[in-house]
Amino acid sequence: MQRFMISKARNLLESSRQNYHFQRSQLFSPQSAHRFLSSTPAANFDSSSFSSTMAPPVSINTINPKVLECEYAVRGEIVTLAQKLQQEIQTKPEAHPFEEILYCNIGNPQSLGQQPITFFREVLALCDHPSILDKSETQGLFSADSIERAWQILDQIPGRATGAYSHSQGIKGLRDTIAAGIEDRDGFPADPNDIFLTDGASPAVHMMMRLLIRSEKDGILCPIPLYPLYSASIALHGGTLVPCYLDEATGWGLEVSELKKQLETARSKGITVRALVVINPGNPTGQVLAEENQKAIVEFCKQEGLVLLADEVYQENVYVPEKKFHSFKKVSRSMGYDEKDISLVSFQSVSKGYYGECGKRGGYMEVTGFSADVREQIYKVSSVNLCSNISGQILASLVMSPPKVGDESYKSHNAERDGILSSLASRAKTLEDAFNELEGVTCNKAEGAMYLFPRICLTEKAIKAAEATKTAPDAFYCRRLLTATGIVFVPGSGFGQVPGTWHFRCTILPQEEKIPAIITRLTDFHKSFLNEFCD
Amino acid sequence: MQRFMISKARNLLESSRQNYHFQRSQLFSPQSAHRFLSSTPAANFDSSSFSSTMAPPVSINTINPKVLECEYAVRGEIVTLAQKLQQEIQTKPEAHPFEEILYCNIGNPQSLGQQPITFFREVLALCDHPSILDKSETQGLFSADSIERAWQILDQIPGRATGAYSHSQGIKGLRDTIAAGIEDRDGFPADPNDIFLTDGASPAVHMMMRLLIRSEKDGILCPIPLYPLYSASIALHGGTLVPCYLDEATGWGLEVSELKKQLETARSKGITVRALVVINPGNPTGQVLAEENQKAIVEFCKQEGLVLLADEVYQENVYVPEKKFHSFKKVSRSMGYDEKDISLVSFQSVSKGYYGECGKRGGYMEVTGFSADVREQIYKVSSVNLCSNISGQILASLVMSPPKVGDESYKSHNAERDGILSSLASRAKTLEDAFNELEGVTCNKAEGAMYLFPRICLTEKAIKAAEATKTAPDAFYCRRLLTATGIVFVPGSGFGQVPGTWHFRCTILPQEEKIPAIITRLTDFHKSFLNEFCD
Repeated sequence: MQRFMISKARNLLESSRQNYHFQRSQLFSPQSAHRFLSSTPAANFDSSSFSSTMAPPVSINTINPKVLECEYAVRGEIVTLAQKLQQEIQTKPEAHPFEEILYCNIGNPQSLGQQPITFFREVLALCDHPSILDKSETQGLFSADSIERAWQILDQIPGRATGAYSHSQGIKGLRDTIAAGIEDRDGFPADPNDIFLTDGASPAVHMMMRLLIRSEKDGILCPIPLYPLYSASIALHGGTLVPCYLDEATGWGLEVSELKKQLETARSKGITVRALVVINPGNPTGQVLAEENQKAIVEFCKQEGLVLLADEVYQENVYVPEKKFHSFKKVSRSMGYDEKDISLVSFQSVSKGYYGECGKRGGYMEVTGFSADVREQIYKVSSVNLCSNISGQILASLVMSPPKVGDESYKSHNAERDGILSSLASRAKTLEDAFNELEGVTCNKAEGAMYLFPRICLTEKAIKAAEATKTAPDAFYCRRLLTATGIVFVPGSGFGQVPGTWHFRCTILPQEEKIPAIITRLTDFHKSFLNEFCD
Repeated sequence: MQRFMISKARNLLESSRQNYHFQRSQLFSPQSAHRFLSSTPAANFDSSSFSSTMAPPVSINTINPKVLECEYAVRGEIVTLAQKLQQEIQTKPEAHPFEEILYCNIGNPQSLGQQPITFFREVLALCDHPSILDKSETQGLFSADSIERAWQILDQIPGRATGAYSHSQGIKGLRDTIAAGIEDRDGFPADPNDIFLTDGASPAVHMMMRLLIRSEKDGILCPIPLYPLYSASIALHGGTLVPCYLDEATGWGLEVSELKKQLETARSKGITVRALVVINPGNPTGQVLAEENQKAIVEFCKQEGLVLLADEVYQENVYVPEKKFHSFKKVSRSMGYDEKDISLVSFQSVSKGYYGECGKRGGYMEVTGFSADVREQIYKVSSVNLCSNISGQILASLVMSPPKVGDESYKSHNAERDGILSSLASRAKTLEDAFNELEGVTCNKAEGAMYLFPRICLTEKAIKAAEATKTAPDAFYCRRLLTATGIVFVPGSGFGQVPGTWHFRCTILPQEEKIPAIITRLTDFHKSFLNEFCD
């Protein structure tokens, strides 16, 4: 019944749209529309039983078709299945051949045991309950510099009111701190009035898509494979995703020749391409762009009149000595380009880096190169939601201004940071090597971010078996892996990939002591999968 | 230049849309599109100076017209002017005839000196920095029940990870607590799987608008005057606002006869009306609906097949003994209607009530009466943003389960709560009486919420003076009031009002000791305004 209704809605959708959907069917798996069918517990009735003589007010056939269209694989079908298995293990430990679910599907470090950074949490706790700041017991519980920093932050908040809505862009004093942090990072000026604090980076991305997309004739050029926040946001806002394939052979490089080709193709089909999304370090691909590559991208955006949407949330996650993170703002300013030359938005988040504070929902975008009247429209849209959460705002300022030489927490903070980053680098390398040991699997170098995106060769027999279950072949592999081992990977089809190739995304986040077992279980599964499906 | 561009963009907008905009020009002031023109500091260039030989990638003419269309008065032009005056006072205290700006424009209690509730902040601080939980100093700083509650909450979070993304609907244990709180409040069952935790109520409202609105042919029936979040969200999602005028003569009642009339009119013009918004207690009007009125509204939605979107964020803000808050879920269940009879969404927030924790951005919606497949689509959309902030989630659970008899904080918590609520009641009454003392001003009873919405008679001479400055007459009054006294009210034209009537919204939130001075300044200003503009 449900499937029939979705399928009917899809038909309605297809016939009612004149949208030009750029190679969409090649990008994502044909089963993707069904991905969320069983993602929440069923309500205690289906729409056919609505009591009134008339139809229920809302059915799957009458919701906004853009919502149906949208997909978000990292919380998709495979995760729903994992949650179901987890519940089964809890009630019946012998139900499955594994003791726990290993979530490698999402960049959520603290869910896998990473501890929060002490200094940041000290400051947050003191700002949450400032009345303990001048109590004597507090000196014994908190570092001196966290107490001092909490006072500084409170003094930046009008009335010291951490429970008040702030300015729609965020507390001015915190934006000053963030701008100073950006200046330290880049060596170029940053303006606190360019900073818009948001509940994580996702709402900032939505805000820009909302601003730029007028109809399905507006296109956003995106790297493929792509973190599905972008494809979901473009779908929700009714635009067209213009894909630009990253080159797996050169370590997932973003080649300007490919960008130009796809831009021209899109334009020839009547699409107005408005912006280019670049994720650096890459998600799901984990590469760190070379500075020369970044310069070519900046030049391309300037020449073609595209907004550059730079997802730089993994700026602190670089694991190889030969690569370094450079912000697109620094790169463009170092080329002599300023506000008048390029429209650039940089997204940052407290969810990533060495802190991994996903649950705090803090982040910002730095918006440069837009005219005053457009900026005012961005301000207006941000003001409709009043402001982002103040703890997230405070944390965003802290990650851009960690303890400095001379501060009591300086050494212990650096030790925490370095411990996490070096462990991430080691985990990334261990997993990369393990993937490359698997027959028919190749994995590029884990340069940065929190992911590996290995390619897997699947046999005709495996592909046919997948087709028989109406599943994309890589989703079929991931589902089998999950039910055999409890390991959760996200199929490459959720990110888009060159047609006919298959991948999966795996985070590098499981704690070190768990990795040997993961590798053993994965290797054993992989061998038996190959045996089962050898042509 | 800017004005010309906006005006050009507006013309483009008008000519390119076939939208049917229901009495829109009557609802909002003609100047509203200009409301945000100077709301952020100017960027250091305007678009005409973009260096490239081609136009800048984004101009006011090429952004999404729905963004231009959207308005949000409570952070609009008058607030921007207030912020400017505040800066001037700081640098030059004698610049204006007042010493401070009195923000009565927004329901933001802690910005005006309301103190946070101790128990809630204790628990939040402990959850932010759990490693102090078992230190001896903590016993001296925190109440025993806050420590116990923090442990309980941590135990509900997988891995005790307050820094991890949660389930997309929010942490299951917290949803259990909220559902139990709803059951206690209503005396009817509540299901934790119906709860979607959100960053304040606003994102929940946007989520429902996104689901329901397919095109400008979809209408949302809204009370007028209306909190502009709803008009802004409908505009951003491209739907049509179908107005239903509240009856000022009967204390802003929502009459079903008027609902039916407007529904029929909309339908006759080809609009599919999908939902009814009800804000109870009312914003901006402050009324509390009688239970009989609520029953009639439920019956109307059931009969007409409309989703009932119940904004119940002021459920704890009732100030008169003869009125009581009843949730729409309780009312509909008490009528014998269940999930199969009515689709109902209730919005709640930590920003209001006696706690007023606006900056924490916590809230939830309880979604009942939707089929499983539609529910899964709501889940999917909520998963695109991963989850709401965990501090906000924790706080949402706390406001639905405050300390109980026998808890160490029980008495002190109740004393804090009762002190705030009785002071709000007293402030509301004082301001209501003061408005009714002003010549040509009438103000309904302050029953609930945080606002008064007095009506003001303006003379022909005042209206003409306003027209001469291209300002709505009530905006003209508010602007004059601000520049003369530093008091910030929001003009009624930002909320919609019966054409030819003028109002303003004033919060009841200034601290008690400030209210006499506010009344004196307002009264003096009002007299001089009447003198200046007597016909």
